[in-house]
Amino acid sequence: MTIEDWRKKIDETDSQILSLLNKRAEFAIEIGKIKRFMKIPIYNPERELIIINRLVSLNTGPLDESGVRKLFERIIDESRRIERRSTETNENL
Amino acid sequence: MTIEDWRKKIDETDSQILSLLNKRAEFAIEIGKIKRFMKIPIYNPERELIIINRLVSLNTGPLDESGVRKLFERIIDESRRIERRSTETNENL
Repeated sequence: MTIEDWRKKIDETDSQILSLLNKRAEFAIEIGKIKRFMKIPIYNPERELIIINRLVSLNTGPLDESGVRKLFERIIDESRRIERRSTETNENL
Repeated sequence: MTIEDWRKKIDETDSQILSLLNKRAEFAIEIGKIKRFMKIPIYNPERELIIINRLVSLNTGPLDESGVRKLFERIIDESRRIERRSTETNENL
């Protein structure tokens, strides 16, 4: 396989990752709505640690533990930002 | 649906994202091997910009453009780190 062939496979994989990241953000918005209704704060460091530790334990590589932690910290940050934005239309939480 | 139901859906989605991130890293390692053989540098800012612009144009939200850029910059960084690590066994590129 050439570099171009592998790049095509990377592009396909990236499209799937993008679609899943948007799905994740949609689920986070739904959680944001419930939290807003129940007046629960958006930021939940315990839950975020559980998410990341679960993924580290599932990880088979070649990503290493530090890579998994860094990437999912960023993914969770971004979800939280969207979750917060979606609840900030009428009030601050 | 309760918060717990949505969290289960997020966990499933995260597992799929993790698996795709590892797939992406494997493809990057293959590209790294070819680059090493052909003595091409690992870092290719033009290709990285093409990747990110393509994903921004595919994005349907709720992630916004800045979120897509930030997340994929981090994903590409991590792939490049693995690509580089896998080529550094015997020589520096």
